[in-house]
Amino acid sequence: MPGDYKYKIEPRDVDSTLRAKIASVADFLMQAANDDADKLGFGVKDLNENNHSWVLSRFAAEIERIPNRNEEISIYTWVSEYGRLVTTRNMIVTDINGDKIGACVTNWAMIDLATRRALDLSELQNKSKSIVDRPSPIEPPRKVRKTTGAEALDTSSHRVVYSDIDFNGHVTSMKYFEWMLDTLPAGVLESTQQVRFDINYVHEIRLGDVVTILRTEEPGEGVHRFDIHDPEGNSICRAVTAFKLQDTSGGI
Amino acid sequence: MPGDYKYKIEPRDVDSTLRAKIASVADFLMQAANDDADKLGFGVKDLNENNHSWVLSRFAAEIERIPNRNEEISIYTWVSEYGRLVTTRNMIVTDINGDKIGACVTNWAMIDLATRRALDLSELQNKSKSIVDRPSPIEPPRKVRKTTGAEALDTSSHRVVYSDIDFNGHVTSMKYFEWMLDTLPAGVLESTQQVRFDINYVHEIRLGDVVTILRTEEPGEGVHRFDIHDPEGNSICRAVTAFKLQDTSGGI
Repeated sequence: MPGDYKYKIEPRDVDSTLRAKIASVADFLMQAANDDADKLGFGVKDLNENNHSWVLSRFAAEIERIPNRNEEISIYTWVSEYGRLVTTRNMIVTDINGDKIGACVTNWAMIDLATRRALDLSELQNKSKSIVDRPSPIEPPRKVRKTTGAEALDTSSHRVVYSDIDFNGHVTSMKYFEWMLDTLPAGVLESTQQVRFDINYVHEIRLGDVVTILRTEEPGEGVHRFDIHDPEGNSICRAVTAFKLQDTSGGI
Repeated sequence: MPGDYKYKIEPRDVDSTLRAKIASVADFLMQAANDDADKLGFGVKDLNENNHSWVLSRFAAEIERIPNRNEEISIYTWVSEYGRLVTTRNMIVTDINGDKIGACVTNWAMIDLATRRALDLSELQNKSKSIVDRPSPIEPPRKVRKTTGAEALDTSSHRVVYSDIDFNGHVTSMKYFEWMLDTLPAGVLESTQQVRFDINYVHEIRLGDVVTILRTEEPGEGVHRFDIHDPEGNSICRAVTAFKLQDTSGGI
């Protein structure tokens, strides 16, 4: 059973171009995923009763047009697949005219909060009811390789603080992405017309941890690769973004 | 003419207690101020046409009950006074039962974006139409004194990044407050039942600036004083917060 959720781009979501920040669009995608899981009876709150939780494993999105301040968007979402350890949730973003402005594919694992181990989804009840037989709207999330300190063109650090933590007591998934985007050269985000991004969530970090955010560039127009390292140099989260900027040609 | 605006506490607004973060409540108060100024025809967008803008000078709020996830709040707001340089906007926050859960008083100046100078509000057209003859619901914003490096119990630094910047191209007013609250000892915000805070905006900072956030404690239960310094040690923003925590007695 698919779900359809409406959101409004609020003043707090936009940058100086009066269009939504990309991290805000990603936040709305995450909210639709949460809202739909809640509706289907397997949201975080339901799972917590069994000491289980969803963990976002991979996230990919293509934004074809960035919505404007006060614009209303609809996010249509459905679960297309249950693997043994990972489930796939898809999203299509449309504007008020029904035109598609973006799409998203996410992979989720379910973990036991006591052992932090992934659970076997083949034992999940009622999952067949939630599956919609419709293929993913874009290429599924790609694996992103590790970025080393030697490769990084830009390095910054961040201590995990209260405002980074979500209702689940973890770092909000989209905060990692925000930290990465904040390392981009000035003007890239303001002049972005379209973007594809792929995020891999590898490990968790906790309040007070100090992380290093690394950015490098890859061949191709506007392609940036990011990695967030813990103090031991382990990857926490990796991403690749491909921006199509204003007044340039070529696809995303 | 007063205005009445409804907002919903979204999942992204709450912390692990499933109640709104205090900075999120402050964000909604700011949004109501913006929404009402827009409605009255002197919002930031209207002012920008004359190369003018509103600048928040002081902000005080008392939160008597922190709203929960998915809760709907109403913010009733009115302008009570125009001084020569500063105007006073008031807000009362109620829950769905009509019970008051918070109140706020803000002071705003209007500046010329070219000269960065405050404008004389006595020349403002149509201002009398917007004034409501009703006193402020709480004590107006107090002046906060500067915190020196020697006084600080806790010091951290922050580089101003893209995600800190709002639609106006400035640091979002409530980001300063978020940076301050992030320096509090663990657990203070999660166990807060009521709070009064007073914020003074002294100077502006820009993208790329590195600021120092200082925190000290004052006599009285749960009273913290904050200051944000630019690299030269000038005050950017100062605040005092008085928290009433769970299982303690005494007023705010």
